[in-house]
Amino acid sequence: MLKNSLNYAYSNQKHFLHDLTDFLKIETISSDPQHASDMDIAAVWLKNFLFESGCHQAEVYKSLGNPVVFGEIYPDTEPKQTILIYGHYDVQPVDPLHLWNTAPFEPVLINEYLFARGASDMKGQLVAVVKAVESYLKENDNCPIYFKFLFEGEEEIGSPNLPRFLLSHEVNLSSDIVLNPDAGMLSVGVPTLTYGLRGLSYFELVISGPKQDLHSGDFGGIVHNPAQVLCEIISKLHDENGKVAIPGFYDHVRFVDDNERTLLNSVNQEDELFLTQTGVKKLWGERGFSTIERLGIRPTLEINGITSGYSGPGTKTIIPASASAKISMRLVPDQTVSEVKNQFLSFLNLIIPDTVSWELIDHAGGPATLTNPDRNEVRAMYDALQTVWSTKPIFLRSGSSIPVVSQMQTYLGIDSILTGFSLPDDNIHSPNERLHIPTWSRGIAAIIHFLYNLNNY
Amino acid sequence: MLKNSLNYAYSNQKHFLHDLTDFLKIETISSDPQHASDMDIAAVWLKNFLFESGCHQAEVYKSLGNPVVFGEIYPDTEPKQTILIYGHYDVQPVDPLHLWNTAPFEPVLINEYLFARGASDMKGQLVAVVKAVESYLKENDNCPIYFKFLFEGEEEIGSPNLPRFLLSHEVNLSSDIVLNPDAGMLSVGVPTLTYGLRGLSYFELVISGPKQDLHSGDFGGIVHNPAQVLCEIISKLHDENGKVAIPGFYDHVRFVDDNERTLLNSVNQEDELFLTQTGVKKLWGERGFSTIERLGIRPTLEINGITSGYSGPGTKTIIPASASAKISMRLVPDQTVSEVKNQFLSFLNLIIPDTVSWELIDHAGGPATLTNPDRNEVRAMYDALQTVWSTKPIFLRSGSSIPVVSQMQTYLGIDSILTGFSLPDDNIHSPNERLHIPTWSRGIAAIIHFLYNLNNY
Repeated sequence: MLKNSLNYAYSNQKHFLHDLTDFLKIETISSDPQHASDMDIAAVWLKNFLFESGCHQAEVYKSLGNPVVFGEIYPDTEPKQTILIYGHYDVQPVDPLHLWNTAPFEPVLINEYLFARGASDMKGQLVAVVKAVESYLKENDNCPIYFKFLFEGEEEIGSPNLPRFLLSHEVNLSSDIVLNPDAGMLSVGVPTLTYGLRGLSYFELVISGPKQDLHSGDFGGIVHNPAQVLCEIISKLHDENGKVAIPGFYDHVRFVDDNERTLLNSVNQEDELFLTQTGVKKLWGERGFSTIERLGIRPTLEINGITSGYSGPGTKTIIPASASAKISMRLVPDQTVSEVKNQFLSFLNLIIPDTVSWELIDHAGGPATLTNPDRNEVRAMYDALQTVWSTKPIFLRSGSSIPVVSQMQTYLGIDSILTGFSLPDDNIHSPNERLHIPTWSRGIAAIIHFLYNLNNY
Repeated sequence: MLKNSLNYAYSNQKHFLHDLTDFLKIETISSDPQHASDMDIAAVWLKNFLFESGCHQAEVYKSLGNPVVFGEIYPDTEPKQTILIYGHYDVQPVDPLHLWNTAPFEPVLINEYLFARGASDMKGQLVAVVKAVESYLKENDNCPIYFKFLFEGEEEIGSPNLPRFLLSHEVNLSSDIVLNPDAGMLSVGVPTLTYGLRGLSYFELVISGPKQDLHSGDFGGIVHNPAQVLCEIISKLHDENGKVAIPGFYDHVRFVDDNERTLLNSVNQEDELFLTQTGVKKLWGERGFSTIERLGIRPTLEINGITSGYSGPGTKTIIPASASAKISMRLVPDQTVSEVKNQFLSFLNLIIPDTVSWELIDHAGGPATLTNPDRNEVRAMYDALQTVWSTKPIFLRSGSSIPVVSQMQTYLGIDSILTGFSLPDDNIHSPNERLHIPTWSRGIAAIIHFLYNLNNY
């Protein structure tokens, strides 16, 4: 019975919190090789945690990077659903350390918040889901759900070794859906279901002119300045309406109908909030689309960095030998990484003058992902969130890219349900990361509701 | 007698070279504060060098920066001319050090070249002129020329403290003309007289957007990327004909008549040579003007450097908080620094969008200079060069700016004769700087001829 599961979770919250606190003490900073042994410790901790929480099987797998933990709860009957629960146990670095009010790996409960690195992103989310499953199982002797758990230790560094694991364990991982609780809530009291993520294509454009930096007096006026050329190229990448001007760029952008646009815009997040968050004088972007649409359903092109010539103090009168820019695009369905690259190359071929040489370096990429919001599992989650928060959840298409979500889609063909109970002011990736305990408790309850709903839909 | 002076110089060349080698060992890098004591050592060295070379008076003057050395040779009769000989004893930095084949401050003679930082720019030129004067004096008991020597240690950093010295020693420095041997030859075997220099206005444009770097997924598409804005601004600074597109920029550019253009173009320096020197695939520039005209009589605008966001290895998905560019203009008569600045500011006001904040930092500047090629001293030098090289010298309007030349004109009202014996492939400002000794010897002879000619014109 649902009620008993909820009661179990409620009465055991102290224990759950105790487990989380233990987990948070392990310094799992994946970007720092000095913490390699902490990653092993955390993987073993997770394996034991899975057993203690009701798993029939749990194993630590070595990878080329940090270990992967995989656990299973076999169904008692022919499974009605197979759910792959994803999580990551690695965390962001803690610097600047002096800005922390408490030690990042000594979790402290202050009022309604648990302060620690990883509390919100995402050890807290991971424990919440595992404990929700435990609470569900306590009341379901004939469990019709096949649970699989996949926890990686490299999310914060882009999941570089996960694809290899996914491919080599394809059969074990086969599932109907991934439950990924690594996406947060739009704000406190606003449960959020992220059903789309943008993809990413990341390039570096290098323009080369003279064989070395030239004296700008001796040669100014007779050679084409690579920094100027780069700027002229970049200025041609957007038109006056803020659209990406690469021919064909929007050709395969999937049409979003009025219903979905209405759904998206119902978020009602005001521009004022974005102004405060970013500190810009005025918002900007593609004409004809609302702020939330420009973030969620429209592709973009961004200059992530430029470097050329002299940038030290004072003056140096040179014509730089070269100039380069990091240029990335956020993709939406159904743009493909290879198509966008070809379009970009063709356009560069067209617009780069013959006074310079150039090279386009392809850094990384992945397509956008989109989960059908009409899926049973999505509806089960939607209703669960609505029940717990007594308000309609937000359907969000996020501007970000989460590599693991596109990897699950690309390598295993499995869609993800993205939700989670972190809040925008949880300071994830920043000093004083914290977890809002009342929201976390509601999150556990919501997952329990979701599992019960699954059986009924 | 001229012949004896020439013989004296010829037979003492080893000694001159020895002095130069001594001088080159002092590590006078003016941009590096760690070499402050080397500047003092060099100044004292120069004072002694002047006395040894025949000066009646020589003194080291403190300045707010590096010391100035001033020396005098009093005439035996009422002076027919007063010549102020200018030089600088500071040199450019040596990095990248690993590209040097020999240690930059351990001069080495290899075949016809003396390798060392400063050998060509301009310790070699300075020693050549002082020793030419010494050779002249040995044969002229009744010297009718009043020689003054002014050596500074801050030319490579824009002579920031020289104006103060010029103003406070105005009376001592009064002269008919400045002989400045800091301008080079167009190529080996082609003696060159530079009668015009471009001026310089140097700015830094800073574009500020968000209060900090933003995640390009979370915010891409809704804020105006400062790097993109900067590029769009820079792309508007030139039109499709390679002209500077700042309104009014050419309004006061002095008309150059056909005679002078013919004189300038008689240089007959082929584009092929510039292609080799620069290594670019193709020359570029303002339509309607020859290469030599674009360098000498036309103003330009150059991007000297750009920096924004991430430029390390791999990727970082950010929207940079700001972007900045070093932007400088080479000016010609009769453009003024203040006028050009106002034109630039007005244009920026017009084209910078209201989505960002911006600031224009004014770094340094000086107007163009032009010496009348019909002056006696210029003719004396022209004939001297022609005699030594047995070929007509080139009259050049150089693309470079030499702040001291415009300072001499602005603060003392004295024109400069600009010549010198450095060659385009001497690698000045680069690794493996060198001095071509045969050209240097001819240079000493040419200055001796010049001094004898002066008496006859």
